Amino acid sequence: MVEPKRENNEVRYNEEFLQMLLMEQEIDAFREHFLALHPYDQAQFYEKVGPDIRQTIYIYLSPEEMALIFEVIDLEDDEYEQFLNEMDPAYGAAMLSHMYTDDAVDVLNELDNDQRESLMEMMDSETVEEINELLGYAEYTAGAIMTTEYVTILENSTVRSAMAVLRNEAPNAETIYYIFVVNDQRQLVGVMSLRDLIIADEDTLIHDIMSERVVAVKVGDDQEDVAQIMRDYNFLAIPVIDDNNELQGIITVDDIIDVIDEEASDDYSKLAGISDADDIDAGPLKAAMTRLPWLIILLFLGMITANLMGQFEATLEKVALLAVFIPLISGTSGNSGTQALAVAIRGIATGEINEQSKFKLLMKECLTGLFTGLACGVTVVAIIFFWKHQITIGLLVGAAICCSILVATIAGSFIPLLMDKLGIDPAVASGPFITTLNDVTSILIYLGLATTFINQIM
Amino acid sequence: MVEPKRENNEVRYNEEFLQMLLMEQEIDAFREHFLALHPYDQAQFYEKVGPDIRQTIYIYLSPEEMALIFEVIDLEDDEYEQFLNEMDPAYGAAMLSHMYTDDAVDVLNELDNDQRESLMEMMDSETVEEINELLGYAEYTAGAIMTTEYVTILENSTVRSAMAVLRNEAPNAETIYYIFVVNDQRQLVGVMSLRDLIIADEDTLIHDIMSERVVAVKVGDDQEDVAQIMRDYNFLAIPVIDDNNELQGIITVDDIIDVIDEEASDDYSKLAGISDADDIDAGPLKAAMTRLPWLIILLFLGMITANLMGQFEATLEKVALLAVFIPLISGTSGNSGTQALAVAIRGIATGEINEQSKFKLLMKECLTGLFTGLACGVTVVAIIFFWKHQITIGLLVGAAICCSILVATIAGSFIPLLMDKLGIDPAVASGPFITTLNDVTSILIYLGLATTFINQIM
Repeated sequence: MVEPKRENNEVRYNEEFLQMLLMEQEIDAFREHFLALHPYDQAQFYEKVGPDIRQTIYIYLSPEEMALIFEVIDLEDDEYEQFLNEMDPAYGAAMLSHMYTDDAVDVLNELDNDQRESLMEMMDSETVEEINELLGYAEYTAGAIMTTEYVTILENSTVRSAMAVLRNEAPNAETIYYIFVVNDQRQLVGVMSLRDLIIADEDTLIHDIMSERVVAVKVGDDQEDVAQIMRDYNFLAIPVIDDNNELQGIITVDDIIDVIDEEASDDYSKLAGISDADDIDAGPLKAAMTRLPWLIILLFLGMITANLMGQFEATLEKVALLAVFIPLISGTSGNSGTQALAVAIRGIATGEINEQSKFKLLMKECLTGLFTGLACGVTVVAIIFFWKHQITIGLLVGAAICCSILVATIAGSFIPLLMDKLGIDPAVASGPFITTLNDVTSILIYLGLATTFINQIM
Repeated sequence: MVEPKRENNEVRYNEEFLQMLLMEQEIDAFREHFLALHPYDQAQFYEKVGPDIRQTIYIYLSPEEMALIFEVIDLEDDEYEQFLNEMDPAYGAAMLSHMYTDDAVDVLNELDNDQRESLMEMMDSETVEEINELLGYAEYTAGAIMTTEYVTILENSTVRSAMAVLRNEAPNAETIYYIFVVNDQRQLVGVMSLRDLIIADEDTLIHDIMSERVVAVKVGDDQEDVAQIMRDYNFLAIPVIDDNNELQGIITVDDIIDVIDEEASDDYSKLAGISDADDIDAGPLKAAMTRLPWLIILLFLGMITANLMGQFEATLEKVALLAVFIPLISGTSGNSGTQALAVAIRGIATGEINEQSKFKLLMKECLTGLFTGLACGVTVVAIIFFWKHQITIGLLVGAAICCSILVATIAGSFIPLLMDKLGIDPAVASGPFITTLNDVTSILIYLGLATTFINQIM
């Protein structure tokens, strides 16, 4: 019965068989086979079939069963709205009530205001209150990704009573593998793992075996910082507290994996100047629309470069050979600028670069730029000399490459640091932007040098 | 006692106090304060102090206590060798024996052959056998990252006896939150969570309550595929089996987070043409050495561009104004190529793009390239007309931009797909490489068009 590794597009379930059961209205057989699947596989099937078949699924599955699917489903933003619209509003509201609050909030966040409000009107007031609380936290904070379903134990309980609480809460809690210990004021005072609990003597007081060194995060903390801590400490869950040290929720490792994935993909996309929505499923027109803003902005920047180069038309007219090396120089400076940029952005994202070490990074990049500039400059002089037997042009191109690599490397690290200082996401200083900027400076350096030494070249 | 969020560089422990205790040889006080810390914080302190102070730590801590530190420590590759060299070999061997096998293997993999062998000679034969088995799996496979410390239960046990096994194994197993159920031949037949176990009736047979739909991976599976499955299914651990369905190990979520981080950082680095070793702590000379190979290769490619452009020197001599638009055209085609490249690489990495959908992606990118090319082309014609009042040059530049965006977009998606097909990591087709390649084609298109229509332009 062990199933082999899932190949791409290989499904773990018999799609046609399930569809047939639905169409022939074999409710019992469908429920038996479908509910035996892992919710992720259920979600794959549910997402893939058309709206007509989904209508039958809404009849055959309870809102509670559908809630399990929506806890793991990974839809495009606009599909949440569409799928919720397909459901009877009372069914949708019941499903959302059965979901873990953090997952329900993720779904509700994708709906428009009217749809969200009309669904929430049909939920019970306690759930609505919890949801509203989570909806109130700013996006990308610990508060926005935490869940409110967790197990708390009072510090003066015994292991036996703690186990009883645990057995009772297990079906509803998102994780029972960490138990959070609170005092009478709901302040977090300790933590213990289920592992420690099951090997402890039943009459021991929780207070005597819990760990008092709890690592907790605040509701307003950035989700990226939370991910870093959970990664460093190998936590399966981390408690979230407010300024009064009161426990507000927990963040589980599955949500953190999504955060890590998102943030990495985000930095990657920005380095290339693309949008996350631009994937294989996006139509070509939609993909073009997401890419064009960058391309058009860069076209205007490029026109500024062209305009600046126009100032040197007289020089270019005198020695047309000069134009031949322009792509080489601007390309090399663009590449070294992108390298410096990527190192700086990665360093900022991982928290390696902070206030104290910013200056150190800049100093390092100045020297790195100097070394790489000199090495590339010398290489170019040698290539042009041995290949073209040109020494003056070679020296000019080499000097221009050396200077523009130095400038590009410094700019590539300085600009993201400056943006970070100003509170702008440094990843916005994407690759294409830095590259175009470095085009301008490198060409100015090159043609400026050429114009100064025009008599030697001719 | 709840500690606040860790700011960058803010430490959770009093470094000077611990150092003082070590220097004043207050062994009991040091052990009391140090061992109360989370192993990650212990590791931070251990890594930060100098080799002299570490010598005292080796005296004050048992190999078992040191093992906990080395399970979470995140050192540079060469530091493992250095730190193990500092230890007495018997102490080092004892420490490695106390570590989870997968973590011990990670450390041993960083040592040179002699050091590894001399350490392994001092370990007991059972541990050595387990380690050798894991060392035998190819890097980046499930086998290489799995651990052999997990809990198995026979399918005909009762819940009561399973709980007893669990209590017994809890101190040694890497996770006890999933229990893997095997038959007499050690073949994996089911799985259950500790959550299900603690709410079950004590006399129930495991076979009756376990889930038979186990998602397992093979020892030879790629670690990226494993990460994808664990992310999709929200697993805390996944079993690893061989071709006979026999359980060989498990992979826990903390190791998977490291894989996700590594792979994302790897793709990012390759897009920018940098190395992972190139961070803020690398000296400028080391950083320059990691960046130079790319820059030099690209210099040679750039020289080819320059050489090809040389063929058009006569055209450039006649109309020097043509040179002014070269950076604009090559820059725009480079940018659109990088966008297409990033979409393709991300799609391949996430498994969204597979054999069947490759053709679909290419078709999509052809149309996307056409749309963006036309839009940018028209924009450029308009800019040059309204700004420079040039219509012929404008049409020429617009046509060149349109063609080169189309070509660059197709190349940006075709090349990584081709590399993937050939079994080469498509991320190697990094941004700088594609950009330089697109430089060549875009300039050929531009100057080719210009030479053809030279009479109209002049």
